[in-house]
Amino acid sequence: MEKVTVLGAGSWGTALAMVLSNNNNDCLLWSHREDQAQEINDHHTNKKYLPNTSLPINLKATSHFEQAIQHASIIVIAVPTKAIREVCHDMKPFLMEKKLFVHVSKGIEPDSLKRISEMLEEELPANFVDAIVVLSGPSHAEEVVLQHPTTVTVASEKMEAAVKMQDLFMNNYFRVYTNDDVVGVEIGAALKNVIALAAGIVDGLGYGDNAKAALITRGLAEITRLGISLGADASTFSGLTGMGDLIVTCTSVHSRNWRAGNMLGKGATLQTVLDEMGMVVEGVRTTKAAYQLAKKQQVDMPITEALHSVLFEGTHPKEAVDILMHRTKKHELDDYKSF
Amino acid sequence: MEKVTVLGAGSWGTALAMVLSNNNNDCLLWSHREDQAQEINDHHTNKKYLPNTSLPINLKATSHFEQAIQHASIIVIAVPTKAIREVCHDMKPFLMEKKLFVHVSKGIEPDSLKRISEMLEEELPANFVDAIVVLSGPSHAEEVVLQHPTTVTVASEKMEAAVKMQDLFMNNYFRVYTNDDVVGVEIGAALKNVIALAAGIVDGLGYGDNAKAALITRGLAEITRLGISLGADASTFSGLTGMGDLIVTCTSVHSRNWRAGNMLGKGATLQTVLDEMGMVVEGVRTTKAAYQLAKKQQVDMPITEALHSVLFEGTHPKEAVDILMHRTKKHELDDYKSF
Repeated sequence: MEKVTVLGAGSWGTALAMVLSNNNNDCLLWSHREDQAQEINDHHTNKKYLPNTSLPINLKATSHFEQAIQHASIIVIAVPTKAIREVCHDMKPFLMEKKLFVHVSKGIEPDSLKRISEMLEEELPANFVDAIVVLSGPSHAEEVVLQHPTTVTVASEKMEAAVKMQDLFMNNYFRVYTNDDVVGVEIGAALKNVIALAAGIVDGLGYGDNAKAALITRGLAEITRLGISLGADASTFSGLTGMGDLIVTCTSVHSRNWRAGNMLGKGATLQTVLDEMGMVVEGVRTTKAAYQLAKKQQVDMPITEALHSVLFEGTHPKEAVDILMHRTKKHELDDYKSF
Repeated sequence: MEKVTVLGAGSWGTALAMVLSNNNNDCLLWSHREDQAQEINDHHTNKKYLPNTSLPINLKATSHFEQAIQHASIIVIAVPTKAIREVCHDMKPFLMEKKLFVHVSKGIEPDSLKRISEMLEEELPANFVDAIVVLSGPSHAEEVVLQHPTTVTVASEKMEAAVKMQDLFMNNYFRVYTNDDVVGVEIGAALKNVIALAAGIVDGLGYGDNAKAALITRGLAEITRLGISLGADASTFSGLTGMGDLIVTCTSVHSRNWRAGNMLGKGATLQTVLDEMGMVVEGVRTTKAAYQLAKKQQVDMPITEALHSVLFEGTHPKEAVDILMHRTKKHELDDYKSF
């Protein structure tokens, strides 16, 4: 049994806290909303994010941030990517000992172009950081809480920390692999949301499964190219956090980014989509960052560019997709090989 | 304009004949059934395989085999894998000149363990074979006939033949890439049906999208391992004919193999499934061949093995999938890396 704190009581943070509690750990879930913490403690539910789900009795929640941080030497950070720096900043005064930080967020910060673990390294005092681990993979929270078989990867530059987290999370329905390629895992996790938005657009336009399969295939190719330029291992992108997560995000009804793209493809404006979703659509922000990163790294990312032109330059989705589909010249073995 | 013959008036043969006719070629479609050829000529429909589809006026059909073979020096073979050898055998007496053969079938022959192009090489007299080309990719016929954007690959050991077929098939909605890795394209095409059956079982058992994404990811890994052992280029499996076709087959409602697996997962026996489908379920036959091929090549193919035990050894689908999901030991970086 370990003491663990999970920061962020959205659907994914809560689902992971359930896994940890099921594994008999002393898990404390922090919510910034007092009424939500109270609902979890009193009624063992978190209806806003996981309707129809009973939380384990041994899972406790708090809205008291200092208490949450001091509860454990393992901190799982499950807040939206946008809030990462703020949460780290707030944590600083309460850090008294080295802790192991696991983040489960997906994205790249626009302008700074930092991955999540790079933001954590910048914000957290090095003398209080035992290790930083990223947990990622094809894992809709809605299925994890039903204990449907799910596989994820934990990656860290410090392999013993990854192995420790594997032991902590692993159980019969939640299978955990280790990897040492933090860059590859984080890039795959962030960029899949860009491709999911594009896949949603293709579906919204009614272009069918053939077109979508081609888009996903080329999408993984451009993610892989970007990752390699940043030092990632190409094989990571063929694994759970690359191809696996990309497939689930582009084809599942649970995917928020796909749904947003689908609405865009059907003619809604970006503002309407964001208003109607009422939840963070991570892919929109990541598209901006990925577009900037591609330019900086001088990597060809046609899908990311096309999506950027739809989201931020007013290009009509149909026009962007048609250009994308037809951009290939007739004889391009080289381009094929770069898939 | 070229003269082209398409052998086999199933949904895929007919869809390809439509593409060729749309491209203003003189295309003759051979059906072994006289009434079907007549329906195509008189009513420009092929209702059994493509309901609600109007065929191009310039597409002609025949049930006269000799006439079909002598019509053109490009022969597209679109018959079921099971009928490949027989069709080649029947062609022999009518071959008077070198022809270019394009096959679009998917499978491996049990026992002989031959790929389609190997069967063609065995059956067709070498002095009448200009080249053998395989056409493959994520391409449901139902979407191609609606002119939805579709991308496929043509592969041949003789690159000029592949390029010629690229020119022949390519148009605005049907995008064609060339590749020289015939082994990789054929292995990917055949084995995806095995994984689609397994994916259908996982869905039939109600295990969800997380489990299916993990299965597809591992599925492509084992296909890739087998392909490499046979001399294929690993990168082919990340392309349209590998990952692309696998995704569409495992996630689309049009997929026959997925539907068969889904019925198995819900408790139907193999015999019931085959009876109810009323169409060839290529994946069943390919599972036997792939299982044999894995043994011969000494390649670890756990999904293929699990599926073989369900189809031919009476293992309950749930038991087989549960073993598959849980077979991984806790710390297996190596296995992950081999994904």
